[in-house]
Amino acid sequence: MAIPTSFPELRPTIALAMGDPAGISPELTARVLSLGDVLAAARIVVVGDRRVLEEGAKVANVALDVEWTNVEWTNAEWTNAEWTNAEWTNDMGGLDDYTRPLFIDLGHLDPTGVERAVATRSGGEFALRNYRTCLELAKAGRADAVAFTPFNKSAMRAAHPGYDDEIGYSLDVLGLRGPASEFNILEGLWNARVTSHMPLADVASHISREGVLAAIRLTDRSLRNADVAVPRIAVAALNPHAGDGGNFGREEIDVIRPAVEAARSEGIAVEGPYPSDTVFVRARAGAFDAVVTMYHDQGQIAMKLMGFDRGVTLMGGFPFPICTPAHGTAYEIAGKGIANIGATRAALLLAARMAARQRQSDRAASAA
Amino acid sequence: MAIPTSFPELRPTIALAMGDPAGISPELTARVLSLGDVLAAARIVVVGDRRVLEEGAKVANVALDVEWTNVEWTNAEWTNAEWTNAEWTNDMGGLDDYTRPLFIDLGHLDPTGVERAVATRSGGEFALRNYRTCLELAKAGRADAVAFTPFNKSAMRAAHPGYDDEIGYSLDVLGLRGPASEFNILEGLWNARVTSHMPLADVASHISREGVLAAIRLTDRSLRNADVAVPRIAVAALNPHAGDGGNFGREEIDVIRPAVEAARSEGIAVEGPYPSDTVFVRARAGAFDAVVTMYHDQGQIAMKLMGFDRGVTLMGGFPFPICTPAHGTAYEIAGKGIANIGATRAALLLAARMAARQRQSDRAASAA
Repeated sequence: MAIPTSFPELRPTIALAMGDPAGISPELTARVLSLGDVLAAARIVVVGDRRVLEEGAKVANVALDVEWTNVEWTNAEWTNAEWTNAEWTNDMGGLDDYTRPLFIDLGHLDPTGVERAVATRSGGEFALRNYRTCLELAKAGRADAVAFTPFNKSAMRAAHPGYDDEIGYSLDVLGLRGPASEFNILEGLWNARVTSHMPLADVASHISREGVLAAIRLTDRSLRNADVAVPRIAVAALNPHAGDGGNFGREEIDVIRPAVEAARSEGIAVEGPYPSDTVFVRARAGAFDAVVTMYHDQGQIAMKLMGFDRGVTLMGGFPFPICTPAHGTAYEIAGKGIANIGATRAALLLAARMAARQRQSDRAASAA
Repeated sequence: MAIPTSFPELRPTIALAMGDPAGISPELTARVLSLGDVLAAARIVVVGDRRVLEEGAKVANVALDVEWTNVEWTNAEWTNAEWTNAEWTNDMGGLDDYTRPLFIDLGHLDPTGVERAVATRSGGEFALRNYRTCLELAKAGRADAVAFTPFNKSAMRAAHPGYDDEIGYSLDVLGLRGPASEFNILEGLWNARVTSHMPLADVASHISREGVLAAIRLTDRSLRNADVAVPRIAVAALNPHAGDGGNFGREEIDVIRPAVEAARSEGIAVEGPYPSDTVFVRARAGAFDAVVTMYHDQGQIAMKLMGFDRGVTLMGGFPFPICTPAHGTAYEIAGKGIANIGATRAALLLAARMAARQRQSDRAASAA
């Protein structure tokens, strides 16, 4: 078996974490491994428990064509700088078929103990360890992107008190401080937000010129990384009627507009602030590639009505893309084999596209 | 000509104010007067300037079949308690055809001085005087409902400094204090809100148990008045993920849920608080007749995406219904004869339905 010496030239590697075992994540993971376009776009390294995946394959009614490994992966090994990508690939089992996914079996969850549709601490521990492993793979340069099938937030909290969301956890694991932000993506329309999981009462005081500008910049950069040449970005206002000239709040005048102007002076194609109750109507009609919103529900109300559950969540601001389907664990249909693979597939394809572009940039940079 | 002695038995009377003259209001007014279903549902008394209406009829390409009057209407006359509805009808010109609309020509605006697509103080004064006249007609018992074609807010402000919205102005004219609230209605789905035109920073401190309860009660009552027998009402949460059990704000626990429970104990079919990014998805699917939202954009983002510009705005909490199309003056298409009459028609039909029901209730009460 020949180990390719030009490993960095190959398609990108995505580390895919199996999510909550009580919902549809096992069947989604199994099914996505059977999709030709996904396997062609990226080399997939799945982290989980083989038995849970095999259960998922039964539910999804797909045959698994996977390279298994039970190497004892420790955190120390992940970060061993002496391992090159090529060596790592070699160690992973002497792969002679680079379209076959590699499954890293952590052997940490017996599915006979998993009750469907119930959020448990052990389920959270399973998903968290898979996810942490994937982040560390990417941090060590052994994967170009990370993806995961849905987590259950209660289970994550039970496993890891203080778990607020994937962004905070990922920053912790990677030893980063941000700025990082979640993007919600539905068929070419991106939504970013300046604030997220906080009481509405706290939102206005967290809207700063710097924060809005950082969100615009991150949106522009992330869209470019996803191959949108000149992203057209709209910024939503904070107040009703965009503040109505200061009658219903001054943040548009004092904070948001100056941030938009600063971004424009950097060459970013951004407009606004626009009233939030019409900006999505225009975006849906194709006027913008992205809408930057000021708070969680401002964008989520619109995106969910437009069908965002079919969409993708991307965590931006990390050294590598992190993607997941927008929908949740769907306990109500778990195990029925009817879960729609569309969003998971889109998540992996977006991760592959962004990672491939990053590889190109890196190669161009190292050649220069 | 026989004056009917049983005037209260007839279909209701709607006082219709001509709105801003520089937009599509003149053509909408002219066109709606040609709709058989509207004329069958209510007797329409239009207030405006005959010349402006005739211009609108030219644009809309409709023939006006209207009873004209140029009676000098003063405020004192409106409130003359000696006038009964029957007498008033009689004075209005010896009408022998009760499907013909009556036009009260205030003769206060020459359309040759109106520039299309420009908001002016004189345009605001025109609309305001028409609207004020209609409110006074209804206050005096000479109309059962009020409707108006779109106003331009800048023009209204120029004409009446301190004009914030129709609700505040109407309360002033009628000498009432509320509670009054705007409903947005799209094809059977109603949206009410607890707060409206205020900075987002002020919203949370304006969410009180009493305010939420009042909004639920008003929603229930208004839907019943529109012939929805047992309105199914959902209440939106204030915070993302409905506060996530207190992690992202406590208003759901401390304020909104107690208000919902109080309303339920009064027999109202109300549920929530539900996360605002999914409640409209459920409502659109038919789960609810109304959603009570906590702030302006929370409902407007959803309603506008669902096509609310085709809908109706109802001001609830007044002694009579006040309805208007949800869209604005549409300056960009004014005078082209392409304005869609759908929302104006729906506004008049809703006003007629609610007024007819009120008449029935009044009759039942007086018979008891």
